[in-house]
Amino acid sequence: MLYFIGLGLASEKDISVAGLEVVKKADRVYLESYTAVLLVGKGELEAFYGRDIILADREMVESQSDDILKDADKVDVAFLVVGDPFGATTHTDLSLRARQQSIPTRTLPNASILTGIGATGLSLYNFGQTISMVWFTDNWRPTSWYPRLQENTSIGLHTLILLDIKVKEPDLDLLARTGRMKYLPPRFMTVAECAKQMVEVEDELKGGVCGKDALAVGVSRVGSEDMQIVAGTLGQLCQADLGKPLHSLVLVGRRGHEIERDFLEEFAVDKELFRELWDSKYGKQT
Amino acid sequence: MLYFIGLGLASEKDISVAGLEVVKKADRVYLESYTAVLLVGKGELEAFYGRDIILADREMVESQSDDILKDADKVDVAFLVVGDPFGATTHTDLSLRARQQSIPTRTLPNASILTGIGATGLSLYNFGQTISMVWFTDNWRPTSWYPRLQENTSIGLHTLILLDIKVKEPDLDLLARTGRMKYLPPRFMTVAECAKQMVEVEDELKGGVCGKDALAVGVSRVGSEDMQIVAGTLGQLCQADLGKPLHSLVLVGRRGHEIERDFLEEFAVDKELFRELWDSKYGKQT
Repeated sequence: MLYFIGLGLASEKDISVAGLEVVKKADRVYLESYTAVLLVGKGELEAFYGRDIILADREMVESQSDDILKDADKVDVAFLVVGDPFGATTHTDLSLRARQQSIPTRTLPNASILTGIGATGLSLYNFGQTISMVWFTDNWRPTSWYPRLQENTSIGLHTLILLDIKVKEPDLDLLARTGRMKYLPPRFMTVAECAKQMVEVEDELKGGVCGKDALAVGVSRVGSEDMQIVAGTLGQLCQADLGKPLHSLVLVGRRGHEIERDFLEEFAVDKELFRELWDSKYGKQT
Repeated sequence: MLYFIGLGLASEKDISVAGLEVVKKADRVYLESYTAVLLVGKGELEAFYGRDIILADREMVESQSDDILKDADKVDVAFLVVGDPFGATTHTDLSLRARQQSIPTRTLPNASILTGIGATGLSLYNFGQTISMVWFTDNWRPTSWYPRLQENTSIGLHTLILLDIKVKEPDLDLLARTGRMKYLPPRFMTVAECAKQMVEVEDELKGGVCGKDALAVGVSRVGSEDMQIVAGTLGQLCQADLGKPLHSLVLVGRRGHEIERDFLEEFAVDKELFRELWDSKYGKQT
């Protein structure tokens, strides 16, 4: 059996009791290590499980999936995914390949940022489609997320924005200079970086979607003891420091409820401005 | 400290290891028992936790929250919620009242049907806002969900539809006849019942949103060993039997990806018709 096991969001203890039982008895344990990370490392997980873990990077999952699936019709294989196993389509693909080889699969769901974001007080019923934000470079500034954001805001919905992470990124400078291959340290986009890119793109495309006066909520380390929430305009969030990774951002939709405002006000950069903006432009039930 | 602890979707072992630790040491343990249910009962939970549980119905949570919050500034109180704690806004309200009394809170997220639905192979990035379906009665046929469905379909998104549950419903017939107050057994809406109501409403409102030829996916007992998936037209799902509760339904959006089709085809009532409909009307990237 191939088990897809969600690990939740923060610590090694966020795995479910059922999931831990499978990990302890599985023949092999893989950890998908490229779409998200826990707030603890492989070492902590191995110590807690009492098991060795095989790190599965994108190349292994997408090109060497036969290694992962090997003998899974006879023995149990655990494939661990940070958050919920089906937050990323790549795992649907692995599941499909298992089916083609007549390998039975089972999914043990867990917390995902897609629902964990509810801890901000924003109602999950008021969210539209989720989008992803990647780092802009000098010659690559993808804006394919902008029309999606526009669709959500046009019907008054909140948008969860998942921020870029870079793990196992080759150091191209070093490679060019010395021919040696080394990986850069992992990088995680911050709320401030995301807010800046959004305001920049709004300045170019002028769709009235994510300018510096739009209300947004930044959040970091959801589900952990030191979760942090900051509410304010995108302009204010360009300056916000939410500490260690992982960060996420929500662009607030017009169709909010006053309980959402009351909950968030506590975390506002400027409470008075937050309430004033909300009351004049948000909280409109349609 | 007031802990909001998600229980996940299926069995008593879906609680996280961290959540179980809190339950074992908390002074009082409440189980919110009116917005969703696990596939196991209070007895199984109490046996597994080795603790007594206080059932918190809607009235207790909304009107007697001071009982729940009592002394929570000095002792630990665990408030257990099926799925993820913030799937229902009512808990944001409890959290807000805790804050007003300077009671610290912490949330331990868990799997929710909002992401567990990813086990159908439908990409969570392609979902719009979630809606709820209640049972129609002779004189109450709410259709406030219809414009929401229309908004989602107009931009090609999938819609998760959460189905009605009735727990602790007074037996009004008995009360009228005998003056005795007794509760009816719990009831859970099925995929077939939901599909029928949707087709009925489409026949009235004619917005081209959820007629009997629209593709949909019914699912039951997500996250459990006997999870069941049935894909087909809404007309076909009116006849589908997905067994024991809980059921959910997804109306498929136009903007699907072929990997979603390939994954779902296996579960189609009529594979050929499913693929034909998908290929002619769905899978359009916009």
